[in-house]
Amino acid sequence: MLNLQCPLPNSDYSTILLAHGGGGRLTQTLIEQIFLPAFGNSTLNQLHDGAILDLEKGRLAISTDSFVISPLFFPGGDIGSLAVHGTINDLAMCGAKPIALTASFILEEGLPITDLWRIVQSMSQAAQKVGVSIITGDTKVVERGKGDKIFINTTGLGRVPPTIQIAPKRAQPGDLVLISGQIANHGITILSLREGLTFETALESDSAPLHSLVAQILAVAGEQIHVLRDPTRGGVASALNEIAQQAKVGIRLVESAIPIHEEVRGACEMLGLDPFYVANEGKCLVIVAPEVAEIVLNTMRKDALGKEAAIIGEVCAEMPGKVTLRSRIGGMRIVEMLSGEQLPRIC
Amino acid sequence: MLNLQCPLPNSDYSTILLAHGGGGRLTQTLIEQIFLPAFGNSTLNQLHDGAILDLEKGRLAISTDSFVISPLFFPGGDIGSLAVHGTINDLAMCGAKPIALTASFILEEGLPITDLWRIVQSMSQAAQKVGVSIITGDTKVVERGKGDKIFINTTGLGRVPPTIQIAPKRAQPGDLVLISGQIANHGITILSLREGLTFETALESDSAPLHSLVAQILAVAGEQIHVLRDPTRGGVASALNEIAQQAKVGIRLVESAIPIHEEVRGACEMLGLDPFYVANEGKCLVIVAPEVAEIVLNTMRKDALGKEAAIIGEVCAEMPGKVTLRSRIGGMRIVEMLSGEQLPRIC
Repeated sequence: MLNLQCPLPNSDYSTILLAHGGGGRLTQTLIEQIFLPAFGNSTLNQLHDGAILDLEKGRLAISTDSFVISPLFFPGGDIGSLAVHGTINDLAMCGAKPIALTASFILEEGLPITDLWRIVQSMSQAAQKVGVSIITGDTKVVERGKGDKIFINTTGLGRVPPTIQIAPKRAQPGDLVLISGQIANHGITILSLREGLTFETALESDSAPLHSLVAQILAVAGEQIHVLRDPTRGGVASALNEIAQQAKVGIRLVESAIPIHEEVRGACEMLGLDPFYVANEGKCLVIVAPEVAEIVLNTMRKDALGKEAAIIGEVCAEMPGKVTLRSRIGGMRIVEMLSGEQLPRIC
Repeated sequence: MLNLQCPLPNSDYSTILLAHGGGGRLTQTLIEQIFLPAFGNSTLNQLHDGAILDLEKGRLAISTDSFVISPLFFPGGDIGSLAVHGTINDLAMCGAKPIALTASFILEEGLPITDLWRIVQSMSQAAQKVGVSIITGDTKVVERGKGDKIFINTTGLGRVPPTIQIAPKRAQPGDLVLISGQIANHGITILSLREGLTFETALESDSAPLHSLVAQILAVAGEQIHVLRDPTRGGVASALNEIAQQAKVGIRLVESAIPIHEEVRGACEMLGLDPFYVANEGKCLVIVAPEVAEIVLNTMRKDALGKEAAIIGEVCAEMPGKVTLRSRIGGMRIVEMLSGEQLPRIC
């Protein structure tokens, strides 16, 4: 449940002090007044050095990510919800059903406690929507100027169903490449915010948890789903290049098939960015055997997070390790992996 | 095996650039030239968004910690070995045998790649000594002045043996309190380094992995071991206060029984620090049923990491939630939890 009132600013401190990371009384206050009310569950409430989970025999997926996005709050989310969605999505890309998350915070001295509280509330809500608990955590504080407000690490555990075999190496010639929706919304939203750009329609980050969408397509196509990948940093281009390299296959894309919001395309042109390299936080690439492409596509389109899903290309034997694109005007070009940095601190 | 030659400075870049965190070619170079050679194992080598482990049915311990210690290199270790030992110890304090670690890096633009490489080599060696693999990871880069060289998050997974029940709440009147060796070495080493103090004998951090020591005492005393706790930030005083509060018991310590290095005691006096509040990174507090105290003590003393182990106090019903200390001159005082910050960025 959303706690509408930050408990701490009424007390003696309104910003984070070094002592909040000292392991003493102020650390305890943070835990008791900010973290436990938001995340509280029977495992976390043990306040032990670690959490203990009872697990059945089987495959466990583990993923870790640190989030350093700037600014902390943006249309469509904040660093807290992003830290939940990002790790949930990495688990989903292994074909796993999420079980639990850990959360570790690096706070900069001077962070307003109300900001921490908003972020923690947002994490809590995002985790509740996914149905996972935050079972253990850690907080460190660094001096002013030695960090940037807040960095969050989340590590996730998930259960991989018995027959599922998702791996970049499984992409094979003949497979089709699908994407769950419009590309580049996250990166362009963050960049617009930093640059002070405004658009006619409000752009939002696509930050969202993909576990349910993935579970639905696994249910209809199982082992015929060969690869799942969320194209975050480096965008669709870098994700597909990695897959092409690892599987030693070529990937051919059709530009006109790739869904993109008109205003995002316009912003990319204005900013000189190629949308294929811009980060997404709520999209997944799905590489499947051709015989299940249609049912996977239809299943995705029935879900709110996949309603603009599309088949955007195919896997081939030619030009192994390379991604090529047939442009709108019919030319063919090689889409390289991102070189250099396009948008720092996008996640 | 220790890689004696950093592979990257011979290439085009000698410091970390923002692009090393961009998810493109430079991120790939870091992974292929720094992380995989050091950590490489069959799980990590999949280069998937997450790792997958095959697990038997049973209890899994999970612990997460972010490390922000300054300076990065210190007598007795560095941020890399500390990040391994710290999380291994949190697992050990749950009674767990470590299985695997994740590693997530937040790098500041401008970090010399040779420093990253030294730290990664040190993590790799520390993990190999413990016998665990680093199975998945993440790297982010923040702009110069928005971080401090390197922060590392490690999250650990461990297996808790079936009959073991370690929890702060299990401390009960009559139990005895043991410590595995001299206190305050880590904190005083770091502080001395920062302040430029020197000592006659070389002080070193006690940073070390306690999983083997813990396995040995669990083997001889099993369920009779009620609580394990590594007194890191906030020191012995804060750790025991937390236990006393959670178990609603009193804890009585005898000052003369608590092992401390003469020079550490001297440094504490000179610096105006109370060693009970100074961080340790290779010590554990063990609270046991009185009938096994002797065998636990002897078992610890046979291990190199426990050779100065001692019984330092007892659990009582009086003054629940409080820790008291009988001083060398016979007086009794209450040892409060740390309030305020004693030593920032000690771990």
